[in-house]
Amino acid sequence: MSATTVVTVLELVGLYVFATSGGLLAIQKGFDVVGILMLASLTALGGGILRDLIIGATPPAAFTHLSYLIIPFVATGVTFFAHPLVQRLNVTVLVFDAAGLALFCVTGTLKALDFGLGPVQSVLLGITTAVGGGVLRDITARETPSLVKTDSDLYAIPAAIGATLVAAAHHLHLPVAPIGTAAAVLVFTLRTTAMLRGWKAPHARLRTQP
Amino acid sequence: MSATTVVTVLELVGLYVFATSGGLLAIQKGFDVVGILMLASLTALGGGILRDLIIGATPPAAFTHLSYLIIPFVATGVTFFAHPLVQRLNVTVLVFDAAGLALFCVTGTLKALDFGLGPVQSVLLGITTAVGGGVLRDITARETPSLVKTDSDLYAIPAAIGATLVAAAHHLHLPVAPIGTAAAVLVFTLRTTAMLRGWKAPHARLRTQP
Amino acid sequence: MSATTVVTVLELVGLYVFATSGGLLAIQKGFDVVGILMLASLTALGGGILRDLIIGATPPAAFTHLSYLIIPFVATGVTFFAHPLVQRLNVTVLVFDAAGLALFCVTGTLKALDFGLGPVQSVLLGITTAVGGGVLRDITARETPSLVKTDSDLYAIPAAIGATLVAAAHHLHLPVAPIGTAAAVLVFTLRTTAMLRGWKAPHARLRTQP
Repeated sequence: MSATTVVTVLELVGLYVFATSGGLLAIQKGFDVVGILMLASLTALGGGILRDLIIGATPPAAFTHLSYLIIPFVATGVTFFAHPLVQRLNVTVLVFDAAGLALFCVTGTLKALDFGLGPVQSVLLGITTAVGGGVLRDITARETPSLVKTDSDLYAIPAAIGATLVAAAHHLHLPVAPIGTAAAVLVFTLRTTAMLRGWKAPHARLRTQP
Repeated sequence: MSATTVVTVLELVGLYVFATSGGLLAIQKGFDVVGILMLASLTALGGGILRDLIIGATPPAAFTHLSYLIIPFVATGVTFFAHPLVQRLNVTVLVFDAAGLALFCVTGTLKALDFGLGPVQSVLLGITTAVGGGVLRDITARETPSLVKTDSDLYAIPAAIGATLVAAAHHLHLPVAPIGTAAAVLVFTLRTTAMLRGWKAPHARLRTQP
Repeated sequence: MSATTVVTVLELVGLYVFATSGGLLAIQKGFDVVGILMLASLTALGGGILRDLIIGATPPAAFTHLSYLIIPFVATGVTFFAHPLVQRLNVTVLVFDAAGLALFCVTGTLKALDFGLGPVQSVLLGITTAVGGGVLRDITARETPSLVKTDSDLYAIPAAIGATLVAAAHHLHLPVAPIGTAAAVLVFTLRTTAMLRGWKAPHARLRTQP
């Protein structure tokens, strides 16, 4: 399988799970079907649109491939009718979010590398692709972004590790398909383990609370 | 009248009413004159800037046509001094917002079609142009975006209908000037009727409230 | 010193102080080290990225010059370990913010002029560069943007004055290095004096409070 095929397949899967994460949050917040569709689309496409605007790939992939627009529609429909275990929605959102995080940090880094950006910039754009949709989702739904929440578990750090692995593999001319897949699995594992174990990034020590 | 002239006239009217909607919200929230000007400009220009960034039309029209910058200034001045019926501000904001919604979904779709984008993408960009400024306005003013509010009446659906009509007319080579105008009138009517009658989009059924 | 050198030096200093302002707010809000780095980077780079996307300079400078990415890292590290006077954090944030405001309104205007934009547009982009990062910082940290806060002191108006001075100097073929520096000092002085004296922009008069 070529790198491009890997990227396409991973992106479509990532789009679906991220759209589901946005749709479930919207249902939790009581949004109507338009709000669910908007939050699903923003979560799925937001990070990639940011990445494409920054690398100058306009119109962004989300607006040139019809499949990118259709997937959030499908995810919204499925989520709208088939969310049977409402009590578990919160956990489900977080697991889908972890899968999206894992897939998008890999595909975002690969696309930036394909556009000839340097490894550091590609890692940063991979992280932006992975966390951008979620930050836009949380800001729009008036949640404090998971990314900066006081008590949140590791989120961007697993993405940074995955993106760095991909950029390093590309730099060393190693095959990107297996390493990209392994990196995505690693990111998902790190993120879900961080949630289960409550791993947190360090905080600055405040002498007195203001 | 050519399609371009129609677009230009509708856009300038749309800019003025949207800027007024942003300015009135800012006055309601007690912002100073800078905040009023900023919220008026963001509401008026935000959706179009998003659309132009996405289709790659940089610098966006807002930065190449001086009239686009002047109109929010004028709207801010008029709104600042002449808002005599303060008790009715809330209704006024909503009516102006409906007019902006109607005008921008039509002009946004037309501009995307002019840039050669497909009909589905053009409809989506028309909706983005129409609702983008309002979402940015609400996020900046720390309101829950009207677009996703739990109890809000139909908002994006009228815009989607109007944008679809315009894209269909373009596809069938029908004259865009009368159909665009009719679509804008229809969107305004649907939106204001939805507010009067309390039409809402369906919600997902939660078995138990989380 | 050429205008380009002046711009580069001022931008690097501006990046550092703006990143520090973002990092200190993140520490105040109790964010972890990832949140601190993200808020520092967004504050430092956000306004310039907006400006570069609007003028079509992609990828933005933040993604082509490694120093732009390194400075928020350094500022985060320094802020993380060396914020000894916690009680004074609030004042410190405001002073650093004023310095960033002063530097970025000058450099943003100069860059837009370098790209051949007209003086009015360049002034607007200078203001966007100066206030954009701070607005993104406040929205992400779920603060009401300083820019529109009901009781906030003059913020965008000093930036507008500084940007106008720079654009006028450029238009009149006066030397930009001393005038840009003087404009930055003036903006900083106006902003800090406005905070000390409580200078505010006028509000619209509401007959009755809604």
